[in-house]
This record gives sequence, structure tokens and C-alpha cells, in this order.
Amino acid sequence: MSQQRINRRWLYVQRPAHESTAEHYQLDETTPAPTPADGELLIQAVWFSVDPYMRIQQSSFRTWEAPHPLNTVQGGGVVGVVVESRSPAFAPGDYVSAYTGWQLYATVAASAVRKLNPKDAPIEYSLGVLGMPGRTAYFGLLDAGKPKAGETVVVSAASGAVGLLVAQIAKIQKCRVVGIAGGQEKCNYLKSLGLDEVIDYKALPRSKDDVDYDAILAALKQACPQGVDIYFDNVGGTTTDAVFNLINLRARVIICGQITQYNGKLDSVEMGPRFLHRLIYTRATIQGILARDYVDRMDEMLPVMIDWLNSGKLKYEQTVVDGFEQLPSALNALFHGKNVGKMLVRA
Amino acid sequence: MSQQRINRRWLYVQRPAHESTAEHYQLDETTPAPTPADGELLIQAVWFSVDPYMRIQQSSFRTWEAPHPLNTVQGGGVVGVVVESRSPAFAPGDYVSAYTGWQLYATVAASAVRKLNPKDAPIEYSLGVLGMPGRTAYFGLLDAGKPKAGETVVVSAASGAVGLLVAQIAKIQKCRVVGIAGGQEKCNYLKSLGLDEVIDYKALPRSKDDVDYDAILAALKQACPQGVDIYFDNVGGTTTDAVFNLINLRARVIICGQITQYNGKLDSVEMGPRFLHRLIYTRATIQGILARDYVDRMDEMLPVMIDWLNSGKLKYEQTVVDGFEQLPSALNALFHGKNVGKMLVRA
Repeated sequence: MSQQRINRRWLYVQRPAHESTAEHYQLDETTPAPTPADGELLIQAVWFSVDPYMRIQQSSFRTWEAPHPLNTVQGGGVVGVVVESRSPAFAPGDYVSAYTGWQLYATVAASAVRKLNPKDAPIEYSLGVLGMPGRTAYFGLLDAGKPKAGETVVVSAASGAVGLLVAQIAKIQKCRVVGIAGGQEKCNYLKSLGLDEVIDYKALPRSKDDVDYDAILAALKQACPQGVDIYFDNVGGTTTDAVFNLINLRARVIICGQITQYNGKLDSVEMGPRFLHRLIYTRATIQGILARDYVDRMDEMLPVMIDWLNSGKLKYEQTVVDGFEQLPSALNALFHGKNVGKMLVRA
Repeated sequence: MSQQRINRRWLYVQRPAHESTAEHYQLDETTPAPTPADGELLIQAVWFSVDPYMRIQQSSFRTWEAPHPLNTVQGGGVVGVVVESRSPAFAPGDYVSAYTGWQLYATVAASAVRKLNPKDAPIEYSLGVLGMPGRTAYFGLLDAGKPKAGETVVVSAASGAVGLLVAQIAKIQKCRVVGIAGGQEKCNYLKSLGLDEVIDYKALPRSKDDVDYDAILAALKQACPQGVDIYFDNVGGTTTDAVFNLINLRARVIICGQITQYNGKLDSVEMGPRFLHRLIYTRATIQGILARDYVDRMDEMLPVMIDWLNSGKLKYEQTVVDGFEQLPSALNALFHGKNVGKMLVRA
């Protein structure tokens, strides 16, 4: 009887001014699990996604939607198992991916979940390479970036959930790939994946709370002797400022993330050098992307990604934190670069 | 005998740190007119173009080409008459448009000029609506901007050579058009052309040497209750900063000019608020354009523009300064908004 199950829920209760930490959340363990209505499922989450975009939703203004409401369960993707089904399409024991957030139990319309076949791939891949970060990388690079063999592609946060895929997909497209990541270990790993050049930004001097502009510019100049044709940006800040000096004719800049700005600088805007004039010289384009725009094209992506994974062309990495109670600190850890690849919490 | 003609030439002799003025030029009246070689023409310029891009070329770094070399004739478009022809395709008395710069006489390859028919349109239109500024406006708006009926189009420097055309072409496309210009007279004129809203930025408070950010943002909000679908930018600076707050889903920002930055801020870069994160929320694109990219498509544009001119759908304005010796001061006057429409100097 689902009514007798007690839920565990992380409520988002306070807007952070800078970093998002456990103090902005409250663990509720007093509410019974809900009961599914007709056409709904009761699912028990097994894997939880933590993503940088969650911090964007904690800003004070409308972004792609209204700010995350306070005193509600933190939204997010999960992989769960069906505990109770009131839909003929699902049976208890089925695995699904859903967007039910940081709670152990949730009811969800059967039409709003995707059934997972554990024989295709590990079920948690649907939160990463075969899910939201995967399609961000795949369509962001291929559809928005339109890479051509031999072009130079720079990827910031190249060891992150999206960047790690972008860098490898760009190599599959026979591009010259330059990755930027923090720390020798991450950089060595990226080199082992075949990236042509890797820049360890943590080895460079810092200025205020970002990498020093002159230092990252010098490193990029050295790594990109032919300039930059595609910049897949996950970080923003001075790294991105520097790249704009090196963009080639008809370069494509893909704005996927701006993680340097999320901890307070969306609300209290930081100043940076004006660079739009450079677009006139280069006729470059800058385009923002968001994973949801490509939801309808998952069937196009999945067979390709699965084939790349199975053939070993694409390596996939996850950083797993155990324990539902770790969710807020796992989110925070993203902003300290504690992850390689996709960060997940296992209940 | 062309050898006996004495040329008049404005040499660009000194890089300006801020405004470009007569002191950065030197008038040379000691050199004989050149003699055309086989396949060349000797032309006598009648109309000279002065354009904001000339100040970009006076920056210290490579833009779309190397900086304008010192101690050479200032480059630029002219309309001239053929004085001597060593090409079977031209006869003395023919009118041509050419890129021979600020000199009264020049030789030029017959293949590098365009013959003008004074019956089609006034010959000087080939430096404006039927030339470089015209194709910048036409292809920049239609090709890069892809306007749809009912969309809100904001045009900065809407009374300038390009902006005045963009604003009217956007009205022809049945868009809601908001123009930004300096001074009541220009704004009244823009309203008389059918623009839906006009913002007189000179009536707003200033901050440092640009329009005040909060003031222009408030004016834009009022003028654009449905947000901004296309921003055709000729100015940059705080006006552009403000527009980025109002861009709609899949907005297109066309970077045609950044005139607020040209007088020194290309070399000594100004700081402005970071805005790239907004592209993620809106999946907007920013694209730089340059007239030369559309040179091959003039035959596509000219009949349309001539038809619009003849039918009165498109009004064309020129600001004419008389006297070859006025060229440097006419260039400077562009940066003080002294022109409505295309600025020309008549020899």
C-alpha cells in the first residue's frame, strides 16, 4: 500500500546569494508517498541527476521559465522503478526516466516518462549520455555548431557532463579539439581520449575569482595556432572573453553554459570587455542552446550514441555520490569541479 | 593629357586615439594624376563616400583586414566619370562607381568598377541605397534577420545610412518597428516614415559618455511591450546592453555596427555587463554582418530596391557636404550624428 510509505523530499527553501549549499534546502521525511491516479505511476527513484542549470533556476528573474518556487521539491531528472502502475503500458519493476525531482517517491503521468531497457545500456545513462546532457552535446555541436573536418573546436569545461561528450564527438567529426579543464588529472584523462590540446586552467594565474585573462589568452593562442572555428562554451567569464580574440571567419560560438556566472553573477551582473565588434570582422555567430529544444529528436540521436558507446568511439564517465541525503552537497560540488563527466546521486 | 592634371589626395597620416579629425589627414596637391595602363580607366571622382567603418580601419589591430596603412590615400567608395579609357567597355563620360578613395583622379581596372546609368537612379545612389549601405540593410535584415510579419524589430541609429533603410524595409515586411535616433527632428522624420515607436536617445540622461542604461532600458520596455524579436544594431554600448534584457525566444541580433565604440574603445576596450547567459534562456542568435559578403547578390537586390524607391515605399535620404577639402570633417561629423541617411561629399 503506497499510503504507508513515508517519502523523503529535499525542499528548496531559500534563495542563495552565492553558492547553493545544504542550507538552502530542507529535508522532509514526514510526508506519506502519494497515491497514483488513473493513468499514473508511483515510482521510486534510484538515481538522481544534479546539474548546473539548477543553480540558474535559483536566480531571481525569469530565465527559460519562472524562478524555481521556494518550499517545493527541487526539480530534476531521475531514474526510478515503477512501484505501482495505473497504466496498462507499465508494470511494477519497470525502469523509467522521469522529471520528478529530489524525492524518493513520486506519482507521474505514464505519458510523461520514458521506459528504459536495462539491456540497452545502464539505466542511469538516461540521465547522461543518453539523456539531457547527451542531446545537449550531440545537437549543440552537430546542429548548432556544424563542425567540419579539420576545424578547430574549443570546449570549455571539457571534463564535465556535456563537455566530455562534445570533445569526443568533435574528434569523431575529425576536428582538431582543444579542451579546457581544471587539474592535471582531468587534463591527462582528456589527452588519453585523443584531444589534440588540453589547457589546465587551474595551472594558470587567477585574477579576482576567474582565470586571468592574459594567461588564458596566451594558452589559447598556443593551443589554437589556426584560430578557433567552433567554441562550445560551458563556462563564460574571462575564458570566453579570451576566445573572442581568436575566432575565425564565420566561427560558431555555442553558448551551452556560463557556470562562472551562476553563483551570484546572474543577479549581480559582472562586467566584462565588450566584444561584439569582433563579430563584424569575422561574421561569426553566437547561439544559445537548451536541451529541451531537441527532445523531439531523441530517436535520431540514441542509435548513433549507443553505437559510438558500443564501438568504444565514445567513452562515458560518471561521478556517483551515494546517499539521498547528499543531494544538496553534490549540487554544490559541481561548482568546485569535483565531477568528471556526469554527476549522479544514488539513493 | 592626363599627365598634366594635378591630383588632389587626402592622405591618412596619423592614427587617432579618439575621434578622427582633419589633423589625422594631410591634403596633397602636388602629385600629377596617374596614367591608365591597358585595361584601365582614369576616372575623376564626383561623389565621395564617408562611412563609419573608416574609423574601424584606423584601429591598431587586424579587423576584417589589416589596419589602414599610414601615408596612403584614405580608402573609400566614389562615383566618378571616366576621363580616359583603355578598355573597350567604357568611354569617356561614362559614370562608374569604384573604390578609389579620397582622391580626385585615380586609375582603376575596368573590371573593378560598375557602370552606372543615370536614367536608372541618381548616380550617387550607388554609394547608398543602391550600393554598400543598401545591401548591408537589405541582406542584413532579410537574410540574417529573417523578419516575420508582426515581429518587433528594433533598429539603433535608425536615421543613419543603413538604419533608415532597415527600418523601412522592416515596415515593408509588416513588422512592428522601433527606431532609436538622436534628436526630435530625426525622430519626427522617422515617425513620418511610419515607424511604430521612436526613441530619442538624446532626450534621455547620459552616464559617462553613453546613454544611461536604466533610462534606455525603460524607454525600450515601453516601446516594446511584446519584447524584441530582431535587433539590428549599429551602435553597441549601453543601448545594446539594454536590448539584451528584452530579447524574445529565438530572437536574432544583427551586429552591423558598434559606432559607440569606434572612437578609441576598440583599442582601449570598454567594459559592459555580461549577457551571454541570456542566450541560453532565449536560444537567441547574434550574428555579425559585413557588406562585402553580399556583393555577389547585388543583381538580386537592385530591382527590388529600385522598385521600392520608384513606388514610394522606400524613402531615401542623403546629407551632402560640398567640397573635396571637407572630407575629414565630414567623416568626423558622422560621429556627432550630423547626418540623416547617407553622408556624401561632392567634389
